[in-house]
Amino acid sequence: MNGFSRARVGVLGASGYAGREAIRILARHGNADIALASSESEAGAKLSTLMRGAPELALTRLEDAELAACDAVLVCLPHGEAARWAEKALDAGARVVDLSNDLRVVSEATPAWAREAVYGIPELHRGCIAGARLVANPGCYPTAAILALAPLLKRGLVAGPVIVDAASGVSGAGRSPKRHLLYAELAEDFSAYGVGNVHRHLAEMRDQAARLSAGKAPELVFTPHLLPVKRGILETIYVPLAEELDEPIAPWLDDYAGEAFVEVRTDRLPQLSDVVGTNLVSIGVQPVAGMTQPMLVVVAAIDNLVKGAAGQAVQNLNLMFGWDEGEGLR
Amino acid sequence: MNGFSRARVGVLGASGYAGREAIRILARHGNADIALASSESEAGAKLSTLMRGAPELALTRLEDAELAACDAVLVCLPHGEAARWAEKALDAGARVVDLSNDLRVVSEATPAWAREAVYGIPELHRGCIAGARLVANPGCYPTAAILALAPLLKRGLVAGPVIVDAASGVSGAGRSPKRHLLYAELAEDFSAYGVGNVHRHLAEMRDQAARLSAGKAPELVFTPHLLPVKRGILETIYVPLAEELDEPIAPWLDDYAGEAFVEVRTDRLPQLSDVVGTNLVSIGVQPVAGMTQPMLVVVAAIDNLVKGAAGQAVQNLNLMFGWDEGEGLR
Amino acid sequence: MNGFSRARVGVLGASGYAGREAIRILARHGNADIALASSESEAGAKLSTLMRGAPELALTRLEDAELAACDAVLVCLPHGEAARWAEKALDAGARVVDLSNDLRVVSEATPAWAREAVYGIPELHRGCIAGARLVANPGCYPTAAILALAPLLKRGLVAGPVIVDAASGVSGAGRSPKRHLLYAELAEDFSAYGVGNVHRHLAEMRDQAARLSAGKAPELVFTPHLLPVKRGILETIYVPLAEELDEPIAPWLDDYAGEAFVEVRTDRLPQLSDVVGTNLVSIGVQPVAGMTQPMLVVVAAIDNLVKGAAGQAVQNLNLMFGWDEGEGLR
Amino acid sequence: MNGFSRARVGVLGASGYAGREAIRILARHGNADIALASSESEAGAKLSTLMRGAPELALTRLEDAELAACDAVLVCLPHGEAARWAEKALDAGARVVDLSNDLRVVSEATPAWAREAVYGIPELHRGCIAGARLVANPGCYPTAAILALAPLLKRGLVAGPVIVDAASGVSGAGRSPKRHLLYAELAEDFSAYGVGNVHRHLAEMRDQAARLSAGKAPELVFTPHLLPVKRGILETIYVPLAEELDEPIAPWLDDYAGEAFVEVRTDRLPQLSDVVGTNLVSIGVQPVAGMTQPMLVVVAAIDNLVKGAAGQAVQNLNLMFGWDEGEGLR
Repeated sequence: MNGFSRARVGVLGASGYAGREAIRILARHGNADIALASSESEAGAKLSTLMRGAPELALTRLEDAELAACDAVLVCLPHGEAARWAEKALDAGARVVDLSNDLRVVSEATPAWAREAVYGIPELHRGCIAGARLVANPGCYPTAAILALAPLLKRGLVAGPVIVDAASGVSGAGRSPKRHLLYAELAEDFSAYGVGNVHRHLAEMRDQAARLSAGKAPELVFTPHLLPVKRGILETIYVPLAEELDEPIAPWLDDYAGEAFVEVRTDRLPQLSDVVGTNLVSIGVQPVAGMTQPMLVVVAAIDNLVKGAAGQAVQNLNLMFGWDEGEGLR
Repeated sequence: MNGFSRARVGVLGASGYAGREAIRILARHGNADIALASSESEAGAKLSTLMRGAPELALTRLEDAELAACDAVLVCLPHGEAARWAEKALDAGARVVDLSNDLRVVSEATPAWAREAVYGIPELHRGCIAGARLVANPGCYPTAAILALAPLLKRGLVAGPVIVDAASGVSGAGRSPKRHLLYAELAEDFSAYGVGNVHRHLAEMRDQAARLSAGKAPELVFTPHLLPVKRGILETIYVPLAEELDEPIAPWLDDYAGEAFVEVRTDRLPQLSDVVGTNLVSIGVQPVAGMTQPMLVVVAAIDNLVKGAAGQAVQNLNLMFGWDEGEGLR
Repeated sequence: MNGFSRARVGVLGASGYAGREAIRILARHGNADIALASSESEAGAKLSTLMRGAPELALTRLEDAELAACDAVLVCLPHGEAARWAEKALDAGARVVDLSNDLRVVSEATPAWAREAVYGIPELHRGCIAGARLVANPGCYPTAAILALAPLLKRGLVAGPVIVDAASGVSGAGRSPKRHLLYAELAEDFSAYGVGNVHRHLAEMRDQAARLSAGKAPELVFTPHLLPVKRGILETIYVPLAEELDEPIAPWLDDYAGEAFVEVRTDRLPQLSDVVGTNLVSIGVQPVAGMTQPMLVVVAAIDNLVKGAAGQAVQNLNLMFGWDEGEGLR
Repeated sequence: MNGFSRARVGVLGASGYAGREAIRILARHGNADIALASSESEAGAKLSTLMRGAPELALTRLEDAELAACDAVLVCLPHGEAARWAEKALDAGARVVDLSNDLRVVSEATPAWAREAVYGIPELHRGCIAGARLVANPGCYPTAAILALAPLLKRGLVAGPVIVDAASGVSGAGRSPKRHLLYAELAEDFSAYGVGNVHRHLAEMRDQAARLSAGKAPELVFTPHLLPVKRGILETIYVPLAEELDEPIAPWLDDYAGEAFVEVRTDRLPQLSDVVGTNLVSIGVQPVAGMTQPMLVVVAAIDNLVKGAAGQAVQNLNLMFGWDEGEGLR
């Protein structure tokens, strides 16, 4: 038993896109009470002005946040700044889900307290999450890529470098004003960025792929693109296979049977609008015709702010507290 | 004779939306050579990286700008900052077109040097512009409104408050990063702002309307809206008339016959896509059925960065130097 | 007692935008079971492929629809075609909400059976709707305009022609493929249509305004615009007043106190994103400075497919059956 | 000498997106006079209503087109229908550029007259085009892909399957109204289509790749995506290399030196907005870090209606008639 029937939840960084989405979800959550919400830019304002339906709580500055009043804390702060607030929240006795990049990959530089962090894709690591005090919530791109690839990786079916070609809506770049994110710059445009395996999410993907492959992970090539839409990620993933699969979709249907937040499509491939506003990852596959070495294209779609951030964070929270895993997310 | 067959032109504030548009137009202008371009954020970079086809000139910081090397200067700086640079450029011997709000309306506070400024809508004030050293380039909203209303105002046909309901693309709000201008905030949204006659363009509209009406100008109500498009302004203008007009469109056809940059539509009303990328104002009219007091709806569209800013500035420049009025603008 | 604790509901025209929204709402409704859904273009397909979470019902062609199996029918068919199906559904014993334009305005041509139709804005006509067998669901533009104007009309405060300048997202034009509704035509564009009081919603607005004004209704001028967004209507309404109001917003606060689906804003004016995806109408007001005759600008926003169509239809259905008025709509 | 100093040009299918773009370009072309323009949907209307600046010619129905009055004909008709009109135009004595898919790939079914067609990418086949009577204008996706890959293919540097991951604006899907192309369906969405090597452009890419590779062409995997923008194609191309390249960009700089319509970027990778509205292909490359087998990512961008259709068609026309290759295209 992990549990509380109710918990007081704090959200640090509540006015960013992920933080706001967390507030939106928690405001209708049956077991969580929003006890704390921080925002540097909107400190003093009522949370209900940020999000209709949220409680009449005043937003506080980070340094004034009473972490001890929380049973759980969602850390929605920028990369780099998040880790130390996750540590403070832990020290204050709260269970913590950190949505930043800070705790996802363990390196030699990782401090002792952070090594406790459990990587939180519930569909793959449900058991570990259930008992955790500290969860590293996955990146948006890795969430889609790893859920898309897991059935092949686990079965050792991948026989060459995997290309993850991905496109994300602009909320993935955050809510801080930057010129290249202005409507007048971005509408009617499309671009690749982080080309050549330099995006920070790559290490996370490699780490998880290795874990699922029992060490013999394929090489990964990852290219993100910036899409003129508000929300959503679509990944088109090219996988060289050791052999043709008789029923290409069977591994996904098997592995994800009964999963509430994985949709394995057999009618057509997923598209962005299938998942925007939901906590779903939608996955479809299509073999490539006429290749000497068999190749499968796996297409996966998520809402980057829900399954790719705040939704999955609450899904993890639900597991940590022994609540219904889908509470607040349907 | 005003003139030079060629002139060295400087653009202050060349990396903002209006400034870049000015560079784009001047780069293909037959009489102008871009001799100077300033930008605080991109100082040191080559102008050609900002705009394909522009010369290999390095952008300079404003304070390093050699105004004396210019025969003419387009001031594309923020309101408030523009006036003193216009004055410096004048003092340095250049002819000046100021695109800001600073010199458009004369008040008691207007210094002596600025009283020389000619308000620059060429279709209405061509004669004054031709001999001018200093032109106040009109605001985007007033350009459309005044050109739309002039035929009625001149004829004394307006018999009550005129409502100018306008919508502008986001480039009108400038290129400085602000949260409410982010793609993720603005796409799929629409809002009114400056409601209740508080927008700074109102004084300019009133001033010009009074001038065209020989003092007995109608009251104006002006409501701008922010549109999720990059460029363009559409104004829907409601005009109470003293009497029904037999041929409502006749005043516009008469007044603007032969004008290269005014399109009077008789087939249908103008829409944004008719004018984006051009120096045109497109105008159409439609009487309102079933009213006790006759009312005419006048619809006008411009590209806010061209006829509403840099295009009209170059049109003014062409007049000031005695060049073909449409040079660089077709 | 109107009532059933549960009802079998049919949706005619379930694959159009309003029909799909009705399915989406009814799928999570605590008292309604979707018993029938018709679509000419998607007959034979499962309803759940049209809308996630909908039942595994097969869509049927209109002529195969078993109306007798329904306790209630929402008619989401095109104008002109809707009325005869509303009549058939009534004859089959169902209660009917007709979302078309067909039954909203009574004229000499209106047949006897249709005269029973109650105009369904719950906030204004709750009592009549509760006992009704047949409700004419209001148009999207009139819903926003009438709710925005009602407090002034009822108090006799309007002293001149009212201008309703409105902009709607493209889903308002329906889901039938038409060239001018293509993404490649409409993105980055904006246009007025139906200019000059020729839009069919005007008669409905006039009718309702007269009813609220006890006969001495003001003249109306109505101009709709087509906005490059998917959903939502924003109306900027110009109202000449007989006198200045001390507290301009007071009539709305008074009249709509306790209304779950009316948001009277006092902090700022409403914008589209405040209401998209909700059943709310959001209303704010702003006096116009510097006018001889006082003028108030009223801004109102709705989601055209929810409060402007399917959401209000379910709100009416809830009243007709004596259910919680907000069931399915929160 | 091929030539005429002027030619009468006909455009069949002038109201589609490619046809309109052809009209736009030809209207400002120094050697071409638009002598004929056909459109089934707009027959009878003046061409100048379709495109500002076009001549006052009446659009004609296809079957009324006087092909004999043309020195050259651009066939902008749907695939399947285009070939027989290309043949008629040839028979009538005109030189023909066919923009459809019909003549690009020669198969056993290709009739004798069509075997004369020259594949028209000027940068690769300038010599053949100059003397041609019949040019098959390349597809939009193949234009970008083949120009991007040619330097590697010619040098035999490709060592494995090439993945062409591409995204196109919606004008690529044509101007016929289809539900999935509506603004309300497509805005804020993103999807892959033709996944698994089933798109009709693949045969064309394979054919041209083989030609450039002297027979030993790599396998190709091609996945197009539908992007919520009006115009433009961006292709992210993954190329396994036999060896690391010392200066990866050198082959492109060498091969395209002096090409007016190829931009080889060394500062950053191309994006859509670099090319929209131009006849350019913009190309950049980036090696992938940390791969056992070296891999290069090549990113290429074009405007699908210009370099991907009408612009390249006019570029071909210019070559066929011995005119300045860039006439009308700058």
